[in-house]
Amino acid sequence: MSLLVTGSIGIDTIETPFGKRADVVGGSAIYFSYAASFFAPVRFVGVIGPDYPHDLHEVFAGRNVDLTGLEVRKGSKSFRWHGSYIQNMNEAQTVTVDLNVLAEAAPKIPEKFVDSKMVFLANTHPKLQLGMLESLPDVKLSVADTMNLWIEIAQPDLLALLKKVDGLVLNDGEARLLTGEKNMIVAAKMVLDFGPSFVVIKKGEHGSLMVSKHSPDPFVIPAFPAEKVVDPTGAGDSFAAGMMGYLATQNHLSAPTLRRAMAYGTVTASYTISDFSLEGLKTATRAAIDGRYEQLKATTNF
Amino acid sequence: MSLLVTGSIGIDTIETPFGKRADVVGGSAIYFSYAASFFAPVRFVGVIGPDYPHDLHEVFAGRNVDLTGLEVRKGSKSFRWHGSYIQNMNEAQTVTVDLNVLAEAAPKIPEKFVDSKMVFLANTHPKLQLGMLESLPDVKLSVADTMNLWIEIAQPDLLALLKKVDGLVLNDGEARLLTGEKNMIVAAKMVLDFGPSFVVIKKGEHGSLMVSKHSPDPFVIPAFPAEKVVDPTGAGDSFAAGMMGYLATQNHLSAPTLRRAMAYGTVTASYTISDFSLEGLKTATRAAIDGRYEQLKATTNF
Repeated sequence: MSLLVTGSIGIDTIETPFGKRADVVGGSAIYFSYAASFFAPVRFVGVIGPDYPHDLHEVFAGRNVDLTGLEVRKGSKSFRWHGSYIQNMNEAQTVTVDLNVLAEAAPKIPEKFVDSKMVFLANTHPKLQLGMLESLPDVKLSVADTMNLWIEIAQPDLLALLKKVDGLVLNDGEARLLTGEKNMIVAAKMVLDFGPSFVVIKKGEHGSLMVSKHSPDPFVIPAFPAEKVVDPTGAGDSFAAGMMGYLATQNHLSAPTLRRAMAYGTVTASYTISDFSLEGLKTATRAAIDGRYEQLKATTNF
Repeated sequence: MSLLVTGSIGIDTIETPFGKRADVVGGSAIYFSYAASFFAPVRFVGVIGPDYPHDLHEVFAGRNVDLTGLEVRKGSKSFRWHGSYIQNMNEAQTVTVDLNVLAEAAPKIPEKFVDSKMVFLANTHPKLQLGMLESLPDVKLSVADTMNLWIEIAQPDLLALLKKVDGLVLNDGEARLLTGEKNMIVAAKMVLDFGPSFVVIKKGEHGSLMVSKHSPDPFVIPAFPAEKVVDPTGAGDSFAAGMMGYLATQNHLSAPTLRRAMAYGTVTASYTISDFSLEGLKTATRAAIDGRYEQLKATTNF
């Protein structure tokens, strides 16, 4: 199924205990597209300013990512983020952020993408996410991400979005903020009541869990047992990418399919965190991902 | 195999968001014995003062726990602990602690227990743990617990103990303190190098992991997906109890056996945390534990 992603494109500066990288390729749509392309063709929608220092056609050379939806907006500036994991590898501290073009109108969805069947609405204002979703009339499966900021300042818009999407992925802190509940199984079930048919809560190094209307049982899966985490940036988007990418190859949505999709998401994210920016993902292949999938099975089986 | 436990017996006062209980039955040997007795007969070794306000023969009535090793020491006072989980359900804050009899000589192991084949050395000074272990000449499987305090003030004794025990269970904070390593897989492997043939790191609501000399793969298992955690006290001891209790019913130690044992530990602890003191464990039966074991399998399977 044709998989479209819309999200941010960033100029990232990252500090971790393993070093610092300045002005590298980043952003949710970037990580998602690169990671999902190991599974299925990806339709990319995002916007930058003419100041963007990398050639994204070069970045995605050899990957099955259609950049028709990449808009270079004259007179605008690219989104910039400077984050640090020096204090805590599990949660980035934002040093500086310049929304720039992200604070303007959403990018336009190209005519040739309008028939997309699957969409991942990476983190942005829920009103923009809803607008994007409504301009894709043929969508069969929509999944959104969100963040603390929108839960705090745009909760009515977020709740309106949750009535329309099939799935929501969010992290444990966000789930706590959205529901006021500390128990993550209970929190996930509360979010399910807001509308989606499945809710995935990401817990970083502690893995993730899912509740869904497809099964009475929750699903809990640990993170891939990585011995070296260099840069966690993009892990959540890569997780969503592995999940959606795998789902794009499946004919229907069931509880077992969703579980396998989460396992693929888990494994895909393990490449992202192994190096800075896209360097970790660049070492992956579909065969290597399948190998780690079997390794993850072996790690959790009893 | 005959399973002996030696550890603390406490008079606990517990505060959690669900309420407060004063002067209830607690202590590592208590939780361990009650929980392990669902699997195998337990030989109990511990010491209290004449001030202990509960009749332990009554507490263990109907359970297969041999209290021959319960010493009531004249002129001594029982161990007391007052803990609070109001700030953080994942980590107790100690309000007050009176070691009392725990600061004195270890209890004597009764003659009839000296042929024990399995021993769980619950958390106490590693010198005492080593002394206990050395007075049990027939032991085939020994597992120890420890805590921050001993890592800080008695590390040489702890390292001497680690050369002699088969397994160590400790929590993530303790593993970090002992090894200086934040990555738990790496930390567990470092502890393995100190001597034990398997190391289990407990991560509270995030489950647990094991590395062992029996398998090159680590094993990672989430916590039982409990929707209501009332009082986490004793969860770690109950985990160890389910694990050791199951191992006591098996003929040999292999990687798959250890994994199943950890799953039983996980499930057993889920009863403990569902209510204050022993109230949660009292609602368990072996059949119910087996039911949750299957549920845990269903929750993690993909």
